[in-house]
Amino acid sequence: MTRINELASISEEKSSITRIFGTAAFRESSRKVLEWMNEAGLKTSIDNIGNIKGMLPGSDPQAKTLVIASHIDTVRNAGKFDGPLGVLMGLDLLEEIIKTKKQFPFHILLVAFSDEEGVRFHTTYLGSKVLAGSFEKDLLNKKDDQKISLQQVITEMGGNGEKIFADCLPPDQWLGYFEIHIEQGPVLYENDIPVALVTSIAGQIRVELKFRGIAGHAGTVPMNMRQDALCAAADFILELEKFAGSNSNNVVATVGKLHITHAASNTIPAEVVCSLDLRSADENSLSYSSEQIQLFCESIGRKRDINIEWKLIQQTKPVICDDNMSEQLEHSIRNAGYPVLKLVSGAGHDGVAVSVVSPVAMLFVKCYKGISHNPLENVELKDIAAAIKVSDNFIAGFKE
Amino acid sequence: MTRINELASISEEKSSITRIFGTAAFRESSRKVLEWMNEAGLKTSIDNIGNIKGMLPGSDPQAKTLVIASHIDTVRNAGKFDGPLGVLMGLDLLEEIIKTKKQFPFHILLVAFSDEEGVRFHTTYLGSKVLAGSFEKDLLNKKDDQKISLQQVITEMGGNGEKIFADCLPPDQWLGYFEIHIEQGPVLYENDIPVALVTSIAGQIRVELKFRGIAGHAGTVPMNMRQDALCAAADFILELEKFAGSNSNNVVATVGKLHITHAASNTIPAEVVCSLDLRSADENSLSYSSEQIQLFCESIGRKRDINIEWKLIQQTKPVICDDNMSEQLEHSIRNAGYPVLKLVSGAGHDGVAVSVVSPVAMLFVKCYKGISHNPLENVELKDIAAAIKVSDNFIAGFKE
Repeated sequence: MTRINELASISEEKSSITRIFGTAAFRESSRKVLEWMNEAGLKTSIDNIGNIKGMLPGSDPQAKTLVIASHIDTVRNAGKFDGPLGVLMGLDLLEEIIKTKKQFPFHILLVAFSDEEGVRFHTTYLGSKVLAGSFEKDLLNKKDDQKISLQQVITEMGGNGEKIFADCLPPDQWLGYFEIHIEQGPVLYENDIPVALVTSIAGQIRVELKFRGIAGHAGTVPMNMRQDALCAAADFILELEKFAGSNSNNVVATVGKLHITHAASNTIPAEVVCSLDLRSADENSLSYSSEQIQLFCESIGRKRDINIEWKLIQQTKPVICDDNMSEQLEHSIRNAGYPVLKLVSGAGHDGVAVSVVSPVAMLFVKCYKGISHNPLENVELKDIAAAIKVSDNFIAGFKE
Repeated sequence: MTRINELASISEEKSSITRIFGTAAFRESSRKVLEWMNEAGLKTSIDNIGNIKGMLPGSDPQAKTLVIASHIDTVRNAGKFDGPLGVLMGLDLLEEIIKTKKQFPFHILLVAFSDEEGVRFHTTYLGSKVLAGSFEKDLLNKKDDQKISLQQVITEMGGNGEKIFADCLPPDQWLGYFEIHIEQGPVLYENDIPVALVTSIAGQIRVELKFRGIAGHAGTVPMNMRQDALCAAADFILELEKFAGSNSNNVVATVGKLHITHAASNTIPAEVVCSLDLRSADENSLSYSSEQIQLFCESIGRKRDINIEWKLIQQTKPVICDDNMSEQLEHSIRNAGYPVLKLVSGAGHDGVAVSVVSPVAMLFVKCYKGISHNPLENVELKDIAAAIKVSDNFIAGFKE
């Protein structure tokens, strides 16, 4: 907890927590984490994308590696726990192992990923992609809002973009990937349970919708002669809410952005653009829902004589957590004396990038009211203690 | 029509029609209208707010005055007809009267009001308020977006703000007020009828609504645990549409503006602000509807656990057109061989300001698809001819 507070005090801004990838504050936090890993007695290194790694070698030099990781970059005006909690709890666990001189048949690698949030380059999982060996070369040319390329940022940080592909942990050396993270949702809080087993990380479909009607004077066009784009969008929003609210459809759906073109209080809206964010742990549910939503969109358009455009922006598949790892984690939760709550992670995590080379398991920790990406983000000490107990149990007994 | 095109060519911008009150283009158009009134043989003057007046004296110097008017200022990127049509058709009518040396027992005053749209000072009816004697002194201190006061603009135009209160036509001298204006709505166009009798100018209630829910991550908050401000707003928009769509409620209602605070595609909206524009020709319907809408707002708020704030921005009463004048106008329409369609004006007009001192009558002219405040605004020559025929008939036979 002291380390979490110390890390939170390193920020680009005095009055908030902001550590965007590659900034001075970010680099200071990296040095701090490296220092702590060294003090704990880990064999440390920093790779070309800025991932901080601390190795605890196992008894067998030929053994595979269990990776324990999370990220230390943040969004703007972030909380203290999203990312750092997983890294610093991993550090606690390894310190304890080193102190008690316990020996493991496998290597344990603690990693603080350098960029998960993707705020600076509008990307995802830069750090974990490098470790998983799935980093795409084109990313190096990507520029931030100040027109600085990722390649330049890597050079500034003392790295070498050309050597980034050698920074991966080869696929045959992954024993498993384990991440501890705050839930960022309200389910644990509402049920007052300290930790949850993550069964999968939801797949996501992002769409931009454009509704086109006909503008008109708010006072002169009778209600039955209108083609109001905002009314059509409202119809869509409520249908969507009803659709996702029915448990059988197995998705969550959100309209987070909505903009009326040339909006004026006395003008009937002619054009509305809005976002659609659709997530599900189940790939079939996700694609079925997307089809169904498109169908009722078309029906709303026909009914109201409104042109509706559906533009797919992004589509990612769900990641299913590994059965064997999850069973062992479930066992550890039960052994530690807590009820086993299984949750789908609606938010994306580094496990998505890692899943291409390694079995993945995740443990969620209860956070205050589910609030995240916000200074109000909070985790209670007793829940951290519970997560430590569960994770310690899990690592100690871990079998491939 | 030639004059309408000539006036339309005077604009602040080359590629559009824009003549905001007090600008160089506006003043040029005023000079042009003054010149035409002089050429027609009217006794002209220009008052301190910039209204252009042309007097045709009646046979009895003690007689009252029939005012025929509309406005010559425009919105940005306007059409040719909104305003100028009424002024230039009035000019046509008076030219014809002068040519035929017809004598009237009353005076006829043609007025080109200087500011009806209120674009520059976010006001309404500056020109007609001065003529009606209801101009409020505080308006002189009102500033435009460049911090220039109305007082300064009046001085620039050669007027004197102090003398503005002497520019009114005293209440006992008003015989009546007659305005010809495009419908700015689709009813005449859809029914293919050239003109309509205006029975009243709708009253208006403008409200700002604020919906407050709770923000959350689009992926992590289950549908049944959300307090989504946008879903509540969508619920309101559809209820409103249904309410106003029921003929028995006798109102039109529009949400023209909607803004999500801190909108992001992956965030559940916590706050939505939208506008409500509510109009009715009937004062009781207007206030009843406002109450009913507030009631279903409260019910949506309770149902969804969303805080809804209702802030009244503006409230104006409906203006009922004068029975006697309207009967004579109806008679003229029938005499000219056209069906009599009675319409409520949903848009505001100078008649609202004038109604405090004078009986008011209005004639609407069909415009293409009801499009207005838009370069596509159009009126057909045959419909102008119909309006001239009706108005000529109306003025020729007019009795108090």
